[in-house]
Amino acid sequence: MANRTYRITEIVGTSNESIDQAIKNGINRVTQTVRHVDWFEVTEIRGSVRDNEVADIQVGLKVGFRLEDA
Amino acid sequence: MANRTYRITEIVGTSNESIDQAIKNGINRVTQTVRHVDWFEVTEIRGSVRDNEVADIQVGLKVGFRLEDA
Amino acid sequence: MANRTYRITEIVGTSNESIDQAIKNGINRVTQTVRHVDWFEVTEIRGSVRDNEVADIQVGLKVGFRLEDA
Amino acid sequence: MANRTYRITEIVGTSNESIDQAIKNGINRVTQTVRHVDWFEVTEIRGSVRDNEVADIQVGLKVGFRLEDA
Amino acid sequence: MANRTYRITEIVGTSNESIDQAIKNGINRVTQTVRHVDWFEVTEIRGSVRDNEVADIQVGLKVGFRLEDA
Amino acid sequence: MANRTYRITEIVGTSNESIDQAIKNGINRVTQTVRHVDWFEVTEIRGSVRDNEVADIQVGLKVGFRLEDA
Amino acid sequence: MANRTYRITEIVGTSNESIDQAIKNGINRVTQTVRHVDWFEVTEIRGSVRDNEVADIQVGLKVGFRLEDA
Amino acid sequence: MANRTYRITEIVGTSNESIDQAIKNGINRVTQTVRHVDWFEVTEIRGSVRDNEVADIQVGLKVGFRLEDA
Amino acid sequence: MANRTYRITEIVGTSNESIDQAIKNGINRVTQTVRHVDWFEVTEIRGSVRDNEVADIQVGLKVGFRLEDA
Amino acid sequence: MANRTYRITEIVGTSNESIDQAIKNGINRVTQTVRHVDWFEVTEIRGSVRDNEVADIQVGLKVGFRLEDA
Amino acid sequence: MANRTYRITEIVGTSNESIDQAIKNGINRVTQTVRHVDWFEVTEIRGSVRDNEVADIQVGLKVGFRLEDA
Amino acid sequence: MANRTYRITEIVGTSNESIDQAIKNGINRVTQTVRHVDWFEVTEIRGSVRDNEVADIQVGLKVGFRLEDA
Repeated sequence: MANRTYRITEIVGTSNESIDQAIKNGINRVTQTVRHVDWFEVTEIRGSVRDNEVADIQVGLKVGFRLEDA
Repeated sequence: MANRTYRITEIVGTSNESIDQAIKNGINRVTQTVRHVDWFEVTEIRGSVRDNEVADIQVGLKVGFRLEDA
Repeated sequence: MANRTYRITEIVGTSNESIDQAIKNGINRVTQTVRHVDWFEVTEIRGSVRDNEVADIQVGLKVGFRLEDA
Repeated sequence: MANRTYRITEIVGTSNESIDQAIKNGINRVTQTVRHVDWFEVTEIRGSVRDNEVADIQVGLKVGFRLEDA
Repeated sequence: MANRTYRITEIVGTSNESIDQAIKNGINRVTQTVRHVDWFEVTEIRGSVRDNEVADIQVGLKVGFRLEDA
Repeated sequence: MANRTYRITEIVGTSNESIDQAIKNGINRVTQTVRHVDWFEVTEIRGSVRDNEVADIQVGLKVGFRLEDA
Repeated sequence: MANRTYRITEIVGTSNESIDQAIKNGINRVTQTVRHVDWFEVTEIRGSVRDNEVADIQVGLKVGFRLEDA
Repeated sequence: MANRTYRITEIVGTSNESIDQAIKNGINRVTQTVRHVDWFEVTEIRGSVRDNEVADIQVGLKVGFRLEDA
Repeated sequence: MANRTYRITEIVGTSNESIDQAIKNGINRVTQTVRHVDWFEVTEIRGSVRDNEVADIQVGLKVGFRLEDA
Repeated sequence: MANRTYRITEIVGTSNESIDQAIKNGINRVTQTVRHVDWFEVTEIRGSVRDNEVADIQVGLKVGFRLEDA
Repeated sequence: MANRTYRITEIVGTSNESIDQAIKNGINRVTQTVRHVDWFEVTEIRGSVRDNEVADIQVGLKVGFRLEDA
Repeated sequence: MANRTYRITEIVGTSNESIDQAIKNGINRVTQTVRHVDWFEVTEIRGSVRDNEVADIQVGLKVGFRLEDA
């Protein structure tokens, strides 16, 4: 079996509910266009505040997927 | 329009329920005394353990707000 | 009173539900074999993806506990 | 409104004039092939020296853009 | 002479021209309300992009000033 | 009991004697104007040299204090 | 000559032999689909263990390549 | 199936031959006393020099292993 | 001579006097139960404040010791 | 051709005009006494403030140069 | 007045007494051969342990000094 | 015995074969002009790619050596 190579793409998933949901939203979007998604790693958690409330949770994610043989 | 300046204040929001709630509690407290709060960034997630249970979740936050013209 | 010394052990708690639950699962496992657990600190948040869904949330934790007098 | 997802691409913009120009050159090149570019963040500033002069300024940039719905 | 204590406040200066001007704008705003400003340190350089152009340069600054005797 | 929020202020304590004394001097100055100071964390240790001797020890400190209910 | 722009892609090369071979395998795979690859930088070295032996060496790489004029 | 918890132990493997061999030596030693070793991550690479030659290569490793149910 | 392996354990030594004493207290406690302790590295310096005084100095230490042959 | 070795020296270039000029001033000074200067990397950007104005921009630089064969 | 350039040299000062003394010993040695030493910054604090006692405190220092005009 | 002081110099060793060889080449060059070289630490691993092959491995090294009494 050949040695596998993986690629890491960096995204920001968002949600107005929770950190967990922002991760799921981001992974959901990536898997619509990328195959063989394998793992993720949170790189940062940020958010915006509007009218004194947390309005948007933004979770930076490094997402790893296996490259198919070229 | 003049160039805006923002200030960043660092706080620790706490909750005995969840990380998301600790963020909301911290932002809620800041917005009671600071105007124009615009964004936040999580700097660390810690907690205390009492009687073998997670007792207190502490979320470090950098909170940015726009300074009014002096 | 003598000066206390603490030890820090590093674990990875997991959950297929949420980051908060992964922390609780990890702390629960540590307290079954370690006494005087006092605090924790999140060091990283990762996860695996299977069939285009977040399958496993992995939360790295530094866990501090007081050492008894030798 | 659905939750937006952003992607972050990493580039190096260059200039033989200034750091500001290297940023502009890099952003100019990215926007020729990527839509919805929204923000950037400087990751490093380097340069080459030739004949005892600063010859080339290289500015690492993380560039964020909104992904369209798949 | 008593030992001096300094305080560090964190701000974001902005400009639509250059990094240098964003620093000056931020320092200018701080010195309108804070006395004895002594030094600064750049913590991050970011910016927004609108219509495919760099629209706003944002420079994070830690700004140190001497505290007067209480 | 409501969830507490803490604020973190960053200072530089100085001494011409020792690192420990610079910490004490900084904490002493902060507590003259801030209530409920709870903990500190050393962020950096620097110093100036004059006439080939260590002249001034500068200890960066993040100082945490509990915010009173607004 | 116009100012060049480079893009940085992040991959993980693997090998069951050595770190050097994992780098070569990753670069070999990237160059099959990307032109003008110019440099790389190791970001992390990890591995899996199976049956008490190092089974798979994984080397994170940032790989830089020159973008052609758009 | 219950949620697994992993523990991370930090070691330094050594070799007078190569970085790869230092990793293998360290993993070999750990697996003699720890079960279910699953992965490792290199934290630092150092070495000693004697008589103007590289004498000892020291590779810091975080080693993860699954905890059995308590 | 076989290649040595070292283990690194992380502790927090405390003192109400000085940073140096907190290091000594921590090392003293570790050596009561661990053999072949060889070196240490300071990872963080924190402290608690009570009644406006530095009450407890806490020094994080990574402590390295040689593992005996298994 | 033998394998080249490079040395990295760390300097602080200064200017009362701009960051770009501080880099040029520092590189200019280094090249007066060091040969084969090849590249630089910015490590930090600081400055002093006098009379409420940015007075001195200080740019930390790692400067690489090729060592001649010994 | 011309713009000054500073150079930063990295040393390790040692002492068997205290961190403060290790800093003084290191600065004392540097100033015997380098002129215009201006500031220092602690980069790390390590030590060796012999016979279960702290035997040698090693303090990493970046030391800045002004370069004379070439 | 007087307290020793060490100096740390930063180099980049290169090789077209392996990381281990790049370290040896760098240490070999340093020891031709510096006495009492004692230890090294890898700070970064980079390389250049030519014609789709790894052409040059560059290993950043901090190299420590004991200073003789002045």
